[in-house]
Amino acid sequence: MSVLVTGITGFVGSHLARRLAAEGEQVCALVRPSAVLPAEGSDLQVLRGDLSNPESYRAGVRELQPDTLIHLAWYVEHGRFYGAAENLDWVGHSLALLRELAESGCRRFVMAGSCAEYDWSYGRLIEDRTPSRPATLYGVAKNATREIALAFAREYGLSLAWARFFFLYGPGEPETRLVPSVTRSLLAGERAACSHGKQERDFLYVDDAAEAIRAIARSDLEGTVNVGTGQAETIRQVVELLGEFTGQGREGVDLGARPSAPNEAPLVVADTRRLRSTGWEPRWTLPAGLAETVRWWEARV
Amino acid sequence: MSVLVTGITGFVGSHLARRLAAEGEQVCALVRPSAVLPAEGSDLQVLRGDLSNPESYRAGVRELQPDTLIHLAWYVEHGRFYGAAENLDWVGHSLALLRELAESGCRRFVMAGSCAEYDWSYGRLIEDRTPSRPATLYGVAKNATREIALAFAREYGLSLAWARFFFLYGPGEPETRLVPSVTRSLLAGERAACSHGKQERDFLYVDDAAEAIRAIARSDLEGTVNVGTGQAETIRQVVELLGEFTGQGREGVDLGARPSAPNEAPLVVADTRRLRSTGWEPRWTLPAGLAETVRWWEARV
Repeated sequence: MSVLVTGITGFVGSHLARRLAAEGEQVCALVRPSAVLPAEGSDLQVLRGDLSNPESYRAGVRELQPDTLIHLAWYVEHGRFYGAAENLDWVGHSLALLRELAESGCRRFVMAGSCAEYDWSYGRLIEDRTPSRPATLYGVAKNATREIALAFAREYGLSLAWARFFFLYGPGEPETRLVPSVTRSLLAGERAACSHGKQERDFLYVDDAAEAIRAIARSDLEGTVNVGTGQAETIRQVVELLGEFTGQGREGVDLGARPSAPNEAPLVVADTRRLRSTGWEPRWTLPAGLAETVRWWEARV
Repeated sequence: MSVLVTGITGFVGSHLARRLAAEGEQVCALVRPSAVLPAEGSDLQVLRGDLSNPESYRAGVRELQPDTLIHLAWYVEHGRFYGAAENLDWVGHSLALLRELAESGCRRFVMAGSCAEYDWSYGRLIEDRTPSRPATLYGVAKNATREIALAFAREYGLSLAWARFFFLYGPGEPETRLVPSVTRSLLAGERAACSHGKQERDFLYVDDAAEAIRAIARSDLEGTVNVGTGQAETIRQVVELLGEFTGQGREGVDLGARPSAPNEAPLVVADTRRLRSTGWEPRWTLPAGLAETVRWWEARV
């Protein structure tokens, strides 16, 4: 494979970069001119370009002629991205990138979607069976991009997989999200205020997600592919494990101290038969992944 | 109303321009730098800009501060647009325009969609009831743009109507489409080869469509709005009327000489209750509209 990757400075992207570099695949990262590269990706070939301006990367792509595109980049500023107007820009950037790559001869595409595209009232979410009914502008924008990308691929004979990520966690996750914020509170010796914690979610360790993307890219899977473990865990289980691993114990977590969102879905879990058909399996159990995440934060706070 | 309109050089746009100019509304047309304006639009204020480059029109829009956007522009090269890669670009251009206008304070939006977004197996197509299941890349791109635009409007408190045009005909229609091609054959004294002609479609005279867009823009209708007559006519009826009006008689039309497409929908007709709630009604009957269209072509061939 000769692969072009976007979003290498992001959460999944940085883990994917490390793996790809380590295994010596012919990989090039398309990176903003202003971006600082992570140390893990320093072995990667880099093409500087701005996804908002296809002319900035066109010549580089034509020269490189990648056979595979892995497109992870999107607007993901935490706390803001669900309703941000930037989602509209990223639909355009993603479609322009898809078109450019197709015209340069690329034939295999893996693009990043989200479980936020699904109707969560179904609980166990199955590709090609569970309806799409995104509740946020982000989910609508991702799902609409998916519809167009798949129709474009059909029309032009391209092979395209749309990876719907479930609840990723691990080293490098943005600080304000659940696992980092609870971990940091606990490491600071503060009690961590949580909701009732009974919601069940499909938590996947970020390195397993990166490996799943590689497995999908190498496979001939087309259409939507869930990226999760297939296993539901309660949020209570997650935060209590964080209490243990930080040495604060389960009592460090104050369950029920925060209200939960109205109409919050009780269960969101991936059906992973499509993903597992590639041979991929998660390598990290929830306790192992959370323990590793705590160690990573311990070295940083 | 202070209105910004795109697509003024297109089929519906040129008719809309004439009407708006005639009634002295405060209207500005956003037009490509290279475009030649139609004579009918010569009274309109013009802002030159390229929808593929928001910077080219940003300052003009900020100065103008329109309260209403009517966005008709899209890639519509006949015979090519259903599967064209350009559809991807126009998703991006349309969303960038929507965002720019919203940020400049515009609060009312009317955007052009198509009956090609619907699942045609339903026959009578009803907004918010008939599922979307576009059969072409064009239909997918329009429908996905609609989903994003409506979610964006909800998130930012904008008022947005998405007009789904049915089968428009009239002066200025691109030559290769049904009504012009049959009319031109007949006017040239040739027999016009048609399919069996039993398919029923909702044909709307272009000037009625332009008037519908004005009525929608002035109303507070939000969401999807069908733009059609609500009346199904057979293609046979249309082409036989063209035979009469061109003086060739019904015998000028060779029904059944062309194969019809496999799985062609027998009936595609708009439910027009939403549109009619604005007070709009079609002014042109099918015979009157076709007679006018034939006169227009007679002056040109």
